[in-house]
Amino acid sequence: MAQKPSIPKGTRDFSPQEMMRRTYMFDTIRRVFRAYGYAPLETPAMENLSTLTGKYGEEGDKLLFKILNSGDFTRGFTPDDAKALAAGAEAGPLPVNAMAARICEKGLRYDLTVPLARYVVQHQAEIVFPFRRYQVQPVWRADRPQKGRYREFYQCDVDVIGTRSLLCEFELVKIVERVFGELGIDVTLKLNNRKILYGIAETVGHADKMTEITVAIDKLDKIGLENVEAELAAKGLDRQAVERLRPILELSGTNAEKLARMREVIAASETGMRGIAEVEELLSYIDAAGSELDIELDLSLARGLNYYTGAIFEVKAKGHAIGSICGGGRYDDLTGIFGMPGMSGVGISFGADRIYDVMLALNLFPEETGIATRVLLVNFGGREQLASLRLLQQLRDAGISSEIYPDPAKMKKQMEYADRRGIPFVVIVGENELAARQATVKEMRSGEQATVAFTELADYLRP
Amino acid sequence: MAQKPSIPKGTRDFSPQEMMRRTYMFDTIRRVFRAYGYAPLETPAMENLSTLTGKYGEEGDKLLFKILNSGDFTRGFTPDDAKALAAGAEAGPLPVNAMAARICEKGLRYDLTVPLARYVVQHQAEIVFPFRRYQVQPVWRADRPQKGRYREFYQCDVDVIGTRSLLCEFELVKIVERVFGELGIDVTLKLNNRKILYGIAETVGHADKMTEITVAIDKLDKIGLENVEAELAAKGLDRQAVERLRPILELSGTNAEKLARMREVIAASETGMRGIAEVEELLSYIDAAGSELDIELDLSLARGLNYYTGAIFEVKAKGHAIGSICGGGRYDDLTGIFGMPGMSGVGISFGADRIYDVMLALNLFPEETGIATRVLLVNFGGREQLASLRLLQQLRDAGISSEIYPDPAKMKKQMEYADRRGIPFVVIVGENELAARQATVKEMRSGEQATVAFTELADYLRP
Repeated sequence: MAQKPSIPKGTRDFSPQEMMRRTYMFDTIRRVFRAYGYAPLETPAMENLSTLTGKYGEEGDKLLFKILNSGDFTRGFTPDDAKALAAGAEAGPLPVNAMAARICEKGLRYDLTVPLARYVVQHQAEIVFPFRRYQVQPVWRADRPQKGRYREFYQCDVDVIGTRSLLCEFELVKIVERVFGELGIDVTLKLNNRKILYGIAETVGHADKMTEITVAIDKLDKIGLENVEAELAAKGLDRQAVERLRPILELSGTNAEKLARMREVIAASETGMRGIAEVEELLSYIDAAGSELDIELDLSLARGLNYYTGAIFEVKAKGHAIGSICGGGRYDDLTGIFGMPGMSGVGISFGADRIYDVMLALNLFPEETGIATRVLLVNFGGREQLASLRLLQQLRDAGISSEIYPDPAKMKKQMEYADRRGIPFVVIVGENELAARQATVKEMRSGEQATVAFTELADYLRP
Repeated sequence: MAQKPSIPKGTRDFSPQEMMRRTYMFDTIRRVFRAYGYAPLETPAMENLSTLTGKYGEEGDKLLFKILNSGDFTRGFTPDDAKALAAGAEAGPLPVNAMAARICEKGLRYDLTVPLARYVVQHQAEIVFPFRRYQVQPVWRADRPQKGRYREFYQCDVDVIGTRSLLCEFELVKIVERVFGELGIDVTLKLNNRKILYGIAETVGHADKMTEITVAIDKLDKIGLENVEAELAAKGLDRQAVERLRPILELSGTNAEKLARMREVIAASETGMRGIAEVEELLSYIDAAGSELDIELDLSLARGLNYYTGAIFEVKAKGHAIGSICGGGRYDDLTGIFGMPGMSGVGISFGADRIYDVMLALNLFPEETGIATRVLLVNFGGREQLASLRLLQQLRDAGISSEIYPDPAKMKKQMEYADRRGIPFVVIVGENELAARQATVKEMRSGEQATVAFTELADYLRP
C-alpha cells in the first residue's frame, strides 16, 4: 500500500533552489534571443510517430519514447503479431519495432529541430519568412542514463528559416557571445563549414568518403597522425589520397593562416572554395562588428554531418572537459523531409543541462537567485497578526516576496524557519512595535536590527 | 515520402503570437506567486505508473497516457497474455489494462498534485515545512478532445504543505484577487467547506450520503427545488430528511446571512460547526485586510469531494459561460497515499488555457505583448549594411529587440516584411544617412518619419 515513491531513472525533480537557478539561466538566454528579434514557439510534447521516425537514424528510432494508444491498444496487433508473441522467443527474434508501431501512434519529442521543420511545413501559409523563432522546451530520449546524460532534458534552440544570408550565421555568433558573456562562462566557438569538408574529400579523390575522412581527421588529437593515416588507408583511401590529406592534417596557425593554406590545397574544388568564401564572409562581419569571442576554425568539426550543408558551430567551455555546451549549423533542406524543399535555415541549440553544470561548478549563479522569500513576518497572533497581515500586503503589493509564519509559534521556531529557508530579513511586529507603529527588522546574516516606521517598510526592504 | 505533417489530436502548436500572450499571462501569474513567497518546483513529465495509477479513480486510470517500455517491450507479456492475444476477441474481452501495465512502466503526468505529494514524501528530509511551492507545467490526459478541452494543457498550481493555519486559505484568496486583478478579469470566488457539507448530511441523518446530497444540491439552479427533492428521495432519503434539507436548499442572502442560518440548521453537527467556524475565520481575515473580490459562499460547491477536507474554492469569470477558471481547496491527507500521513495542505490551480481564452475574448492582452521585434533595420548592403550592423548591436545591447533584413532586397519587400511581422519601427540608413550619421526612423502605424542621430538611436527607440 504505502509504496516508497520514486521517479523514472534518467529523470529529475528540480527543487526550488535548482528551479530558481535554472530560471535565471533560461531567462538570460531568452532575453538575449528576444533582443535579437527572435520570437517564441512551442510545440506539443507528443508528435505523431510518423513525424519522428526515420529522422534521427536507426539508433535514434530506438531512442524514441513511444506512447501506447489509449483504449484497446491490442487492436493494433495483427494476427501474425499475436501468433509471434504466443510462439515467443522459440520462433526467433520478434519484430519488436514493427509491433510497437502498430500499438503506438505517438511519441515524445526527441529534439526541437524536427518539430520546427514540421511546424514550418504545416503552417507555411501563415508564417512570415524569414521565420525567426526560439524554442525552450524539454526533449526525451530513451538513452542509457549516466552522469550528465538524462532521459528528459531541456534544449534552447534559436533558428532562422527561409534565407541563405550569412548575416544569420553572424547573428548566431553574436548570440553565443552575448549569452555566455551574460552567464559569465568563458568559451571557445569552433567553426567549420560542410562545403570545406566536401572540398577536402573531393580534393583527395574520394568525394564519396567525406564522412570517413572527417571522422578520421577528428581523431587526430587523440590518436596522432600515423594512426589517422592507417585508419584512412583501412577505409579504402589509397596512398596518394592520404598524402594529399597531410597538409590538412598538419594545418595550424591563426584562422586567416588556415584559410589561406586551405585555399591552396582545395583550390580545384568549387564547392570547397565556396565553403572558404562563406567562412571568410562570416569572419569579415565579425571583424567589422568587433567581437571578444575566441573563434577557432576547426576543420575536424563535423556534428551531424548528414544534416548540415554550410556553417557548423560548436561551443566549449574553456577549462571544462564537459564536451559541447552549444552547437548548430546551416541546413539547406530541413523541411524537405516533409515535402517542402528549398527552405534554407540556420540555427544553434544551447544545452541547458550542461550549461547549468558548468555554472554550478564555477559558482556563477548570483547569490540572490537562491532566495525565494525575501521577508518573513513573525506571527504573534491576535492584533499583532492583523497588523502584520496589513504590512505583508504592502510588501507584496510592492513586489517584495514575503510571507508570514502561518501560526503564532515560538519565536525560536519561526527564526529557525527563516534561517533554514535562507530568508534574509525577518520583520517583528510585537506589542511595542504595534504601539509605536514601527517594525523591528532583523537582517539574518549579520544579526543587525533596525527600527523602521510601518510606512517606510516597503522602501526599506526593496532589493 | 512527402507526408503532409500534422500533430496528434487534442495537442496544439503555440505560434509566436500565442506564445507571447501566453508568456505575458504565465509571467503575471508567476510574479504574483513569487511576491507571496512561493518557490518554483518542476517534476518530470514521466512518472512511474505506480505513482499515478489509482489516484484519479477508475476513469482517471483510463485517461493516463502510458509510455511503452523501451527495448523489447514484449518481454513484459506473460504467456497467458500472448495466448489471449492470439485467441483474440473470440475468447472474450482482453484484460487490456493489466496487459498495458506489463509493457508500460511509465506514464505522463496527469496533474501537478499527485507529483507534488510524491515529491514531498520522497524529499521530506530536505524540505523545510511549511513547504510553499508553485508549479507551472503541462499535464496530459487521454480525454476525448473537444472545444476548450485538450490532451496537453498547462496547470499553474500553488500549494502550501505542512500547516493547518487558515492564513494559508486567506493568502490563496488574496493571490486569486491579485492574479485576476492584474490580468484584468472580473471574477467571482465561490467558497465552501467540506465540513459543512458533511454537517448537512449528518443533520439530515444521512452522513453516508454526503456525495449524493451535494450532487443534488448542485443541480438546484438547473432543475428546481421539486426535482431536487425527487432525486434525493430516489437516492434513498426519506421524506423527513428531505424536509430538513429544505432550509438549506432555499438558502439565500449575504454570506453572513447564510452562515447565520446554517449555524442554526446544522447546530447539532460538531464537524459542520467546525466548518462554519473555519469559513468565518477566513472571512474575518479577508474583512480585516480589505478585499475588492466578489466572494460568494456557495453550499453546492463540491469539486473533487473525496479529496478535500476543509475549504473548497472555485473561480468563475463574470459573464462567461466557460466554467471554472481556477479552483482548489484543503486536503488533510494528500501524502497519505505515499505512506506519509498527517500532512495537511491547501492549494489552488489556475487553468491557463481557459484563462487565456477569456483574456482573448475580452481583448485583455496589452498590444505590446504581440510584438516580437520592435525595430527593423533596412538592409542596403555594402557600407550601409556594415553601419547598420553596428547600430543594430547598440540597440540589442540596450535590450531593444531588433533585427536587420538579411538581404539587400528591394525596399518595398523589406517594408512589407516589417508590416506583416507587426514591427512598429523601421530604421533606414542609406547613403545620405550614413554621411550625416543620422538614421531615418519610420513609425509604421502613423507613417511618420524622424531623423535621429546615430548616437541617440537607442534612447529614441527604447519602449
